[in-house]
Amino acid sequence: MAGALSSTIHGNLIARAVSSSNPKHPLFSHRPMVVAMSTDQSYWSSVNADLDTHLKQAIPIRQPLAVFEPMRHLILSAPQTSAPALCIAACELVGGHRNQAMAAASALRLVHASASTHENLPLTDRPRPTPRTRPTLYGPNIELLIADGIIPFGFELLARDDDPAENNSNRVLRAIIEISRAMGSQGVIEGQYNESQYEESEGEEIFHVGWLQNVCRKKEGTLHACAGACGAILGGGREGEIEKLRRYGLYVGMVQGILSKVDERKEWSVKEVNKLRDLALKELKDFNQAKVKTISILVETRFCNL
Amino acid sequence: MAGALSSTIHGNLIARAVSSSNPKHPLFSHRPMVVAMSTDQSYWSSVNADLDTHLKQAIPIRQPLAVFEPMRHLILSAPQTSAPALCIAACELVGGHRNQAMAAASALRLVHASASTHENLPLTDRPRPTPRTRPTLYGPNIELLIADGIIPFGFELLARDDDPAENNSNRVLRAIIEISRAMGSQGVIEGQYNESQYEESEGEEIFHVGWLQNVCRKKEGTLHACAGACGAILGGGREGEIEKLRRYGLYVGMVQGILSKVDERKEWSVKEVNKLRDLALKELKDFNQAKVKTISILVETRFCNL
Repeated sequence: MAGALSSTIHGNLIARAVSSSNPKHPLFSHRPMVVAMSTDQSYWSSVNADLDTHLKQAIPIRQPLAVFEPMRHLILSAPQTSAPALCIAACELVGGHRNQAMAAASALRLVHASASTHENLPLTDRPRPTPRTRPTLYGPNIELLIADGIIPFGFELLARDDDPAENNSNRVLRAIIEISRAMGSQGVIEGQYNESQYEESEGEEIFHVGWLQNVCRKKEGTLHACAGACGAILGGGREGEIEKLRRYGLYVGMVQGILSKVDERKEWSVKEVNKLRDLALKELKDFNQAKVKTISILVETRFCNL
Repeated sequence: MAGALSSTIHGNLIARAVSSSNPKHPLFSHRPMVVAMSTDQSYWSSVNADLDTHLKQAIPIRQPLAVFEPMRHLILSAPQTSAPALCIAACELVGGHRNQAMAAASALRLVHASASTHENLPLTDRPRPTPRTRPTLYGPNIELLIADGIIPFGFELLARDDDPAENNSNRVLRAIIEISRAMGSQGVIEGQYNESQYEESEGEEIFHVGWLQNVCRKKEGTLHACAGACGAILGGGREGEIEKLRRYGLYVGMVQGILSKVDERKEWSVKEVNKLRDLALKELKDFNQAKVKTISILVETRFCNL
């Protein structure tokens, strides 16, 4: 692992975000927003409302309640991620209908909730708690098991989405492979491993730039890349469109990862996020520009259940 | 959870297995074996050899080695389960070819390895270690993450098994749903939860019969029921055959679970296993009896990589 990391560590150090008390504020107040917030807020609100409705209907309330009550709570209260919404937006961008991506978007939210829950478990050999660590609500044993149960539930939701009338089995199987790889040992798991190897210095937390880029690429980047690709696959996008939305998702995820971990007003963050935003927007230039206006907000704003 | 358990607790107590030093010996020496061991050992050896070969080829050796080396080791060294072999045998019993069930059998071995690894993690609120607890080889943090990575890898293997030439997408998706449900919060996870709620008495471990039946039904039972059903689905079995092999798997799994947890010479174990064996063999009576001879060994012998 040392080898994999050392190639990207530049020896540069940056300070962690001091405060994240207002996660809704625009990324850079000195740059004009590309799109009108009101229109797009309404788009993302409707996407997230549909997702919530779908998930609440999908998560059973049944016996044993000692298992299902915490499962429901841990899924619905997990830290927000923009990946599921990106999945739906990507589907619509290639001409698909929102419902075609709803199961995949739900699966992304579930696997993310599971990963977040396991990240938070107290283990004897983990670095001391970070500012993001929360107390376990139901005790470590329950939270370990519940998160283990959430992952197959996500795959079940997706596999059940197979619709003989639509003849979409191959698209669904492809989305299952995409999500498996993104969550696996060359994706989010590798990012979590790298993150857990991080040695905190005393007092203020200091990051290596290369380490941070690597973690954000593997965690948030891979998840969003997968979300973009899955949405495009399920919406019937062409191979070129799928790859563009995969790369767009990668840059979006890295932006969201960086903004969640470091102070966005620092010079390094401003430069890095600007670079990633330009790369991201280039991937969208061949799509319908009226629709692009909406999806591009993901690299303009720090996401928090818009 | 208490409600779910109380309905099956009879208040009967039985002693845990004192020794499991000879896991290969026939289950009950006072009953004649139904089948000749030599023939069937050769069948199961060939099934397991094919599975090992398939898995070793499927598990990549690649960077980062800090992730992939423990992943490979934890998969290949996990406690044995007869579920993957049952999956292949069920496929062949309904007239399918072994290769049609190989990916599902591998996925079952992977999800079982992941569940075993998580069961073994030291958490602050878990009961004190049982006689089966092993030290974590790579530290709790790595083992948590690796086992998290193994689950999606199992689903990926299965989803990749989709073969357009065979037009088997729907069977593969159905197997994914079966495995998701078996591993989820109404299957193995519920069994693990129930097992973790077990209060040990000091000294010799004492079980409630109802608790033990519930744990074995949900853990080993559900996994083997899923294995029988998946093998039959992928081998092209009829719905009736699928359900018979699901029930056969349930009884086989409960037998294997009981034999792994309690002294098989005790009166209760003998009675319970005999009852389950009779139920299991009834499910096989309409199949080709030449092939049944082989598969029925799973309720005749304690499984340990035959």
